[in-house]
Amino acid sequence: MRKVYFDNTPLNVAQEKCLSLFHFEPKIETISVVDSLGRVTAEAIYAKVSMPNFHASAMDGIAVKAEKTYSAHETSPLRLKLHEDYEVVDTGDPIPEQFDAVIMVEYLHQIDEETLEIIEPAGPWKHIRQIGEDIIAGEMILPTNHCIRPVDQGALLAGGILEIPVLARPKVAIIPTGSELVKPTVELQPGDIIEFNGTVFSSYIKEWGGEPLYKGITIDDFQLIKQAVEEALEEADIVLMNAGSSLGREDFTSGVIESLGEVVLHGVATRPGKPVVLGKSNSGKPIIGVPGYPVSAYLAMDWFVKPLVHQFHKLIEPKRQKIKAKLGRRIVSKMGAEDFIRINIGRVNDQYIINPLTRSAGVTMSMVRADGLLRIPINSQGYELGEEVEVELYRPLEQIERTIVFAGSHDLIIDLLASTIRELEMDYFLSSAHVGSLAGLLAIGKDENHVAGIHLLDEKTGEYNIPFVEQFLANKKSVVLVNLVYREQGWIVQKGNPKNIQSIEDLKRKDISYINRQGGAGTRLLLDYLLKQAKILPQEVYGYTREDYTHLSLAAAIKGGNADLGLGIRSAAKTMGLDFIPVAEERYDLVMSKEFFQGEAGQMLMQVISSEEFKARVEALGGYSCREAGRIIYQNY
Amino acid sequence: MRKVYFDNTPLNVAQEKCLSLFHFEPKIETISVVDSLGRVTAEAIYAKVSMPNFHASAMDGIAVKAEKTYSAHETSPLRLKLHEDYEVVDTGDPIPEQFDAVIMVEYLHQIDEETLEIIEPAGPWKHIRQIGEDIIAGEMILPTNHCIRPVDQGALLAGGILEIPVLARPKVAIIPTGSELVKPTVELQPGDIIEFNGTVFSSYIKEWGGEPLYKGITIDDFQLIKQAVEEALEEADIVLMNAGSSLGREDFTSGVIESLGEVVLHGVATRPGKPVVLGKSNSGKPIIGVPGYPVSAYLAMDWFVKPLVHQFHKLIEPKRQKIKAKLGRRIVSKMGAEDFIRINIGRVNDQYIINPLTRSAGVTMSMVRADGLLRIPINSQGYELGEEVEVELYRPLEQIERTIVFAGSHDLIIDLLASTIRELEMDYFLSSAHVGSLAGLLAIGKDENHVAGIHLLDEKTGEYNIPFVEQFLANKKSVVLVNLVYREQGWIVQKGNPKNIQSIEDLKRKDISYINRQGGAGTRLLLDYLLKQAKILPQEVYGYTREDYTHLSLAAAIKGGNADLGLGIRSAAKTMGLDFIPVAEERYDLVMSKEFFQGEAGQMLMQVISSEEFKARVEALGGYSCREAGRIIYQNY
Repeated sequence: MRKVYFDNTPLNVAQEKCLSLFHFEPKIETISVVDSLGRVTAEAIYAKVSMPNFHASAMDGIAVKAEKTYSAHETSPLRLKLHEDYEVVDTGDPIPEQFDAVIMVEYLHQIDEETLEIIEPAGPWKHIRQIGEDIIAGEMILPTNHCIRPVDQGALLAGGILEIPVLARPKVAIIPTGSELVKPTVELQPGDIIEFNGTVFSSYIKEWGGEPLYKGITIDDFQLIKQAVEEALEEADIVLMNAGSSLGREDFTSGVIESLGEVVLHGVATRPGKPVVLGKSNSGKPIIGVPGYPVSAYLAMDWFVKPLVHQFHKLIEPKRQKIKAKLGRRIVSKMGAEDFIRINIGRVNDQYIINPLTRSAGVTMSMVRADGLLRIPINSQGYELGEEVEVELYRPLEQIERTIVFAGSHDLIIDLLASTIRELEMDYFLSSAHVGSLAGLLAIGKDENHVAGIHLLDEKTGEYNIPFVEQFLANKKSVVLVNLVYREQGWIVQKGNPKNIQSIEDLKRKDISYINRQGGAGTRLLLDYLLKQAKILPQEVYGYTREDYTHLSLAAAIKGGNADLGLGIRSAAKTMGLDFIPVAEERYDLVMSKEFFQGEAGQMLMQVISSEEFKARVEALGGYSCREAGRIIYQNY
Repeated sequence: MRKVYFDNTPLNVAQEKCLSLFHFEPKIETISVVDSLGRVTAEAIYAKVSMPNFHASAMDGIAVKAEKTYSAHETSPLRLKLHEDYEVVDTGDPIPEQFDAVIMVEYLHQIDEETLEIIEPAGPWKHIRQIGEDIIAGEMILPTNHCIRPVDQGALLAGGILEIPVLARPKVAIIPTGSELVKPTVELQPGDIIEFNGTVFSSYIKEWGGEPLYKGITIDDFQLIKQAVEEALEEADIVLMNAGSSLGREDFTSGVIESLGEVVLHGVATRPGKPVVLGKSNSGKPIIGVPGYPVSAYLAMDWFVKPLVHQFHKLIEPKRQKIKAKLGRRIVSKMGAEDFIRINIGRVNDQYIINPLTRSAGVTMSMVRADGLLRIPINSQGYELGEEVEVELYRPLEQIERTIVFAGSHDLIIDLLASTIRELEMDYFLSSAHVGSLAGLLAIGKDENHVAGIHLLDEKTGEYNIPFVEQFLANKKSVVLVNLVYREQGWIVQKGNPKNIQSIEDLKRKDISYINRQGGAGTRLLLDYLLKQAKILPQEVYGYTREDYTHLSLAAAIKGGNADLGLGIRSAAKTMGLDFIPVAEERYDLVMSKEFFQGEAGQMLMQVISSEEFKARVEALGGYSCREAGRIIYQNY
């Protein structure tokens, strides 16, 4: 009987269930201390020798027998004979057996080559580094279940330990399943999906101290998948099956686990990440069905596999840093499941501001771009704009503190700007949200970002940007407008322009499907301006209401045949191998507050914008001019 | 001309000098994305394919042409024919070219095998996951100088990237020098020092993302060392010379660097860590003379080598977490150099309490045991007891928060207790300071520790511990006294008892040298009690004033021939291979506050003390009885 509904187990209950189910017997192996970094001691380790293992002189001078010097006094100096009464010692030298004190060279008076005179007695064991000052033979150097650091290796070797028993690394088998999967390639056929989760899983396992065993792709066939899992169980301590954990016709994970053991749980009350399967093989090993969508997959790895790997290794799982931050947008959540929202965080005006990234479980790039994760409880309907919430960090706080938060119009060169900042080793980062020119501009007024990228054409004056800054920002804030580039906007059309598009008049044609940018985007304003000039109504354009958020995704839609044309920048057309018919050159500027502009980060940004490296890379893209890059266009202070 | 005085450059000046001196040319190599975890991108990486690279169904249902469904209505259902008007699609399937929308299976009415009926039109591009939803071909996936994480690998592979250019790892040569050095062994001769710094350095370099090149030991010979450095410069990007960086007769580091380039700085104003040499080879590479004493060495690595490795790799060096904490003891500092004090930190009664560890630069174990580092500015004379200071953490704060702070009498079983806590996976740690019974007891009263280990014999009553708790603690705090063990105290003497020691009367003999424990130690009290009973005065005992802080180091002193006997526990004698003449059995108890005892950590501790694992390990040491382990001896609430 195929299961039809998921369990809806709360995450914390599912996690506890998972951990309490498995009791890994420690597997022990003996390895060289030299190779033991990051390994975990399988028993307490005791020193075999003392460090130092001899009494050593702590000074340059002579070794003597203290009690033979007691008569020395200023009024009755004492003479000492070499080899009889003393030996010369340097710092670190062993003290000859018959002696028990050192007199520093400063207190010696040379009488002849073999005779010295002293006027003060030596104290017994004075200036001697005693046996075992650092480590005493028999002393415990490390406890059981201790993860070995570089200094621990030093102490072990110093204590005469060459090999130690450690816990074997947990072996984790990774079985990607799916008939649509192909090995990474650029030769993709429609329907092909590159198998990349397995590599991500392997790297996680390595980071957590385990040993990944990557198995090849298995197609959607019950018997083949069962066989792959059976083989993996022979060798591995934990088995991961990737994809097929849902309830569809070709989702075999749960069935395969049932045929080899027991399904403990199928489905957790989370969004994303719901279709997780927790299973236990007949031999008592965990078999985890990890969802196929990348974001669900990586969260499930973090929730279930990471704790198991640490449990196997008898280590306490390190926790991510958490901070309190303010929401830059309202976030809505449906009750009945915990929501996990990937977020960007920026420190603007001494406050941490959060902005959510896409919630789609299929967007790997949202994990690449995320600064952290916001958890919305199971019975919450979300948070209001401005509310303070706690978030878990994916990047070190010190990096977040040094991140410039960009929001505004999309352009490929914003990524280039971010990369050039890193290239010039500026010790800063730039994160960007593509919300359109107007939203970016308004965000500056609300202290939600440091920099907005805008290209807003004023219909009345034909002027770019300044009228908008004056209308929406300049009355409440000291701001500055700096030019980034001039760029070409035009019609992005299929390669070879098969529909023979020539001018704006073609947008009225019935055989033509248009794709638009979202409201508030500078490019949308430009289109509306062009339509008005040509006296064309929006409803005359087929596809006017179909919106995309970036130049590149608009171009991708055209490339994929979704639409015949759209307005966009030349570099997007070029990148996607499409044709481009120029319409206008526009000015793309950056808006910043006075405080940011005058601060270290703002000045660094100006330096990068004006750098030859940045300009050369931008102009190489085609369709850009950096002739005024970095020029101050406007300021109101 | 050999240099006679050190430079006394402030640390921050020396660090800036070091970083600004070297400009590493990036070395680039191309590697597989699968192997790229932790590597650093050498350029911005752009997607080669889109993910998905086809329009995919986002639902189970049928693919249709939206405009052909517009007439469908509840009052006039529309019939669709298979292969003509629709195709069946599952989630993830590619949408056939002629279609542009998906209708979910729930909205379909089956008429016959090939005919379906709908009563609502489909919206164009509804329920379709468009090309590039995750990644668009041409989009920047990663910027330059980005350290690759698992999710980055996923995005790269999803974008059709199989190989990427990355920065080569910095190669760091490690040259241990010193004629006293031997490879790790238990067969040590007097004067031999095990070479272990090189392994510690290698592990640090690995942790920082570099590639260590460990060279063999080179003896103290100018020409041989010079040759080793010359050879290392051929291959490595950074060369480390270990030891020989001071000003002694056999300290060749500075001279060797001068013969191959330039000494930039010799000596920083720090304690420990002063004798650092910063050099630049004629080819422009860093040659760092790292001091030989382990603690100095590891600090110098952190100050100079870690930033260089990060600079080479174009990465920002991660900073350690810092917290504010209160000093449990006064700490004195001499002006003229920054002091770096290794410390233990404990959270007692919602306050972080710091206690300094030994300042000796030769004690590797102090780095193993340290929770963090306290920095005392160059012109400060130190801090008062109770003062709040900022410290840098060596261990995660969450571990420090779960660490039980023990202070009191030394016993080997305290280490065993710490290890058993880890063995039983209690998610707690135990750190111990051996300050003697009385100091440990008093610390409980000042909220400086969680647990004190005591064995204090009341001379008048012959009773253990309770009279002291009542006198010093019970009037101001609710406390509980729990038995840990009974243990044998006795005379620790040379193997075979060559001086034929029989009883306390032998302590008066002139041919016998005694070694004592420090004032406040329970064992010292026991000796004084025994002396009083035997009517022997302290001044009659040769060596009475010579004090040691632990049973093991006292036994090591006897083993090393420093003394003929001392009073101590049987396990210390056994561990060091010495003879033992029993004198008394004493009760060793633990004192805890009521709050700690009743809390989670206290109850966990009780569980471990009463566990069979702990008792078995303790009794195996010899000289212990756990017959009352865990019994409550006394409580005042």
